[in-house]
Amino acid sequence: MLRTHTCGELRPYNVNEEVILTGWVQRLRDKGGMVWVDLRDRYGITQLSFEEGITLPEIIEQARNLGREYVVRATGKVIERFSKNDKIPTGAIEVKVTKLEVLNASKLPPFLVEDETDGGDDLRMKYRYLDLRRAPVRRNLELRHRMMRETRNYLDSLYFIEVETPVLIKSTPEGARDFVVPSRMNPGEFYALPQSPQTFKQLLMVSGFDKYFQIVKCFRDEDLRADRQPEFTQIDCEMSFVTQEDILNTFEGFIKHMFAAVKGIHIEKLPRMTYADAMRYYGSDKPDTRFDMRFVELNALAQQKGFPVFDSAELVVGINAKGAASYTRKQLDELTDFVKRPQIGATGLVYARVNEDGSIKSSVDKFFTAEDLAAWGAAFDAQPGDLLLILAGETFKTQKALNELRLEMGERLGLRDKNVFSPLWVVDFPLLEWDEETQRYHAMHHPFTSPKPEDLQLIDYRPGDIRANAYDMVINGVEVGGGSIRIHDRKLQEQMFRLLGFSTAEAEAQFGFLMNAFEYGAPPHGGIAFGFDRLCSLFGGSDSIRDYIAFPKNNSGRDVMIDAPSPISDQQLDELHIRMKNLPKS
Amino acid sequence: MLRTHTCGELRPYNVNEEVILTGWVQRLRDKGGMVWVDLRDRYGITQLSFEEGITLPEIIEQARNLGREYVVRATGKVIERFSKNDKIPTGAIEVKVTKLEVLNASKLPPFLVEDETDGGDDLRMKYRYLDLRRAPVRRNLELRHRMMRETRNYLDSLYFIEVETPVLIKSTPEGARDFVVPSRMNPGEFYALPQSPQTFKQLLMVSGFDKYFQIVKCFRDEDLRADRQPEFTQIDCEMSFVTQEDILNTFEGFIKHMFAAVKGIHIEKLPRMTYADAMRYYGSDKPDTRFDMRFVELNALAQQKGFPVFDSAELVVGINAKGAASYTRKQLDELTDFVKRPQIGATGLVYARVNEDGSIKSSVDKFFTAEDLAAWGAAFDAQPGDLLLILAGETFKTQKALNELRLEMGERLGLRDKNVFSPLWVVDFPLLEWDEETQRYHAMHHPFTSPKPEDLQLIDYRPGDIRANAYDMVINGVEVGGGSIRIHDRKLQEQMFRLLGFSTAEAEAQFGFLMNAFEYGAPPHGGIAFGFDRLCSLFGGSDSIRDYIAFPKNNSGRDVMIDAPSPISDQQLDELHIRMKNLPKS
Repeated sequence: MLRTHTCGELRPYNVNEEVILTGWVQRLRDKGGMVWVDLRDRYGITQLSFEEGITLPEIIEQARNLGREYVVRATGKVIERFSKNDKIPTGAIEVKVTKLEVLNASKLPPFLVEDETDGGDDLRMKYRYLDLRRAPVRRNLELRHRMMRETRNYLDSLYFIEVETPVLIKSTPEGARDFVVPSRMNPGEFYALPQSPQTFKQLLMVSGFDKYFQIVKCFRDEDLRADRQPEFTQIDCEMSFVTQEDILNTFEGFIKHMFAAVKGIHIEKLPRMTYADAMRYYGSDKPDTRFDMRFVELNALAQQKGFPVFDSAELVVGINAKGAASYTRKQLDELTDFVKRPQIGATGLVYARVNEDGSIKSSVDKFFTAEDLAAWGAAFDAQPGDLLLILAGETFKTQKALNELRLEMGERLGLRDKNVFSPLWVVDFPLLEWDEETQRYHAMHHPFTSPKPEDLQLIDYRPGDIRANAYDMVINGVEVGGGSIRIHDRKLQEQMFRLLGFSTAEAEAQFGFLMNAFEYGAPPHGGIAFGFDRLCSLFGGSDSIRDYIAFPKNNSGRDVMIDAPSPISDQQLDELHIRMKNLPKS
Repeated sequence: MLRTHTCGELRPYNVNEEVILTGWVQRLRDKGGMVWVDLRDRYGITQLSFEEGITLPEIIEQARNLGREYVVRATGKVIERFSKNDKIPTGAIEVKVTKLEVLNASKLPPFLVEDETDGGDDLRMKYRYLDLRRAPVRRNLELRHRMMRETRNYLDSLYFIEVETPVLIKSTPEGARDFVVPSRMNPGEFYALPQSPQTFKQLLMVSGFDKYFQIVKCFRDEDLRADRQPEFTQIDCEMSFVTQEDILNTFEGFIKHMFAAVKGIHIEKLPRMTYADAMRYYGSDKPDTRFDMRFVELNALAQQKGFPVFDSAELVVGINAKGAASYTRKQLDELTDFVKRPQIGATGLVYARVNEDGSIKSSVDKFFTAEDLAAWGAAFDAQPGDLLLILAGETFKTQKALNELRLEMGERLGLRDKNVFSPLWVVDFPLLEWDEETQRYHAMHHPFTSPKPEDLQLIDYRPGDIRANAYDMVINGVEVGGGSIRIHDRKLQEQMFRLLGFSTAEAEAQFGFLMNAFEYGAPPHGGIAFGFDRLCSLFGGSDSIRDYIAFPKNNSGRDVMIDAPSPISDQQLDELHIRMKNLPKS
């Protein structure tokens, strides 16, 4: 290679060696007849030095003419540094340069290529290749690489086999919107890009592959939010001859391995919580269990006391924000405004402070006696200094709103430490959810999820109450993975499609191949998929998956660096047998 | 799990253990009051036994009712077998069944699910999930998995970092035809699926990632041949601060590791052959060097002797098919017919037999003296029993035709053993090739390939003679990988685009982002990509990459199992701002 060592490699035991380094000019100092250049590559930073009277004048001149981000190749001798830098591993040495080549010059970068940059989001997206030079961004991708490797190590060790499933597949009406690809060879027809390899991994189970995984790109043409990308990566897994218990144990092992291998963190057995309990105690199917602050239902204690808001409510429920009794009026008003935001939708907030003497002072004192409030305090296990926050209204809406308030209070009270990890399983999800808009049931997980056998009797008269053999892994309030035991019986699968409003012909046209496969000896099977981008961001301590994707797209689905998507030629349109609709003028 | 052991696991030391097995019924024999069932899973086959008088009658009855490919769960005791089967690892034991559950029945499969099947290609593609149950097909995918793992092991050990590049990118006019994806959010615009991550991996080098790899799906909308698929997998690699020598050494190490780890074969240093020599001695840039049979040029010896076919030819060239002098008139006619096929295109074949006494008898004796023929014999280092086969005509065409004849003779003489591997590097490819049809130069590798600096002076007056820093790895006549040192200088890249007929505006619109990136400190870099499907088929000893793809498409780009591509709804078309052109009635 053009170098003998990387910029992260030299140590005092290399002193006196003749070395060649290559890299980028990070910084240049020129002072008192000395020139120092910080040379950077993927592996670290090494200081180059040039000294008047020792270094040849033309080389010092060359050094003085270097600009930021120039690519250079420097030959020289390793010497011990006079003033050592403890902050970097190479800080005890420097290279006294005897030969300097500029391999490529650089224009002045549009933002600082340093750990702390002055570049805005848009600029850094346009020059993503420069942003990727910054150590924090590079470390994110290094973390991602390590997590891929450890994922494979773990699954390999259990005899999972990685199988690549096709990217050009078939569009299906179920689930999110597909990206499609017009076929040139089959006029009038389209491929779709997979939202997940679901049907293929099930077919692999029918094929007897027994244990499958794949780290695979998936695609959804959805309106984007900060944490969504049109293309994303899944760790996709499936096993045969298993019960739900086997899957939970296998992937509990997976996440423990990941925490141990990647972060050096030992994780205890993952608690399991039913969906019903998660909603009841946390108002969310992905509770952040780094802190307790469980919901306490107050219907029995707080209704029929004359407070109309509570009396008319389906649910009165609250949390105990421990130690927050000192909250000022202003802070409490903030919280009230918070829960009244349209996206949260509560109509108001009731609070009660627990005083130092144990007495309780609430915002609705006129409706409740001291004894009433003391009963609340007991229900909340309240101590002096605690603040009780109570919402009331329709059950599901109120749970959701209180979940938001709980997370907000957790944040404010410093209970959501990014370096603490609290994984758990949420199990026993409902099979179906009712969609008011289309007036029909949707599959909560997907149409291939198996109902619990003991709930099957409900199918004709209370299908909404059927629980599924479906489970999510949740860490710190983030759903990192989810899966289910699948249907492996043609008749049950047909029944499921009928429940979801498919006609027999539609089910056959879309998923006939899978139902046919079930007739040729399909084994019991189930699986799980992890959102890999999200898992990386969680491990990395960031809220944004974009930070863990080399070349992400913006909220309009654009890659602003390469300027994609972009128009194609009329010839291409012709070959694909399509044309553009008249577009509205914009 | 539903089993205690797999069907490949039990051995004599398990005798007397109570076990539970799950799997598919491979075969059933019912004879003299005994029933035997071969139970199969991914790991092997285990014999279940049922014996009248010992096994409960209802269980024997159950066993007798099993059909091929039924999925069962059998509980029983491991016993030593009376007549052992040495051909399978579990052949010394069987399981005496005490409990039998049918987990799923199976219709009669449309073809035999055995190593040797009676199913035709089309039927096996439609029921791919059943074909995948057959051990030879399953082993292909297991090989593929192992090769992925070993690829990553090797590259990881050298600090390569795997980075996922985007699948939704930008359509470019260069190279093969793109698959495109209409954008819903950006009306009138399209993404393209990558033919390779070329520009992204170069940008990663600009970003300082230093050593990148990715095992990645790529896409080409080309008319398909037997060994082409619209989606295929590449091992894509790139390194910074390297010369060609560094890349060749690194990936020579890679292929040696693969042969050693996957096939237990030790490979010596890879020979290097220039493109010019490959064409001259083998008539191909991907010579099969498992056998020698080099081309011998006869212009000096065979022209100006009065044979018009030779005299008017640009090139007279032949091979020595050692030991084939006994070929009959009929066999020689076959060879003549072979070279005269339109796709080979020779006008005729001249042959000369070397007799036992060393004299030579040719098909053109009337034009040549015995001394002339003896001189040919010397040029070919011919021995008694050899057969010389000679073609004449325009240089490139004749080389190509003789290459085909050489491969045919290699095949006939048994010199192309699938278990022998002969890898080499072909280097010094031309930078450009002239395209008669469009009357312009095309990049032989791609537009980002660096010319050899010493040839750059030819750029204005003999660009066709410029050699590139480009190289292919060839094994047994198959190009398994290819790459180049890249251009990292904006001006040279602009010059290259001009040579290829791009206007400045076109170059800027398509590749402006890359050329801009070159202005911010792009390091010298280069890389290589291996065709992973082909590498797998080569290692597996097959000519067809389809055998190594879980769910391949047919020659019309269709997945006949899931029936894709397929029409999409008018609503989908509307959302994507496109409509179908009027299609010709078919």
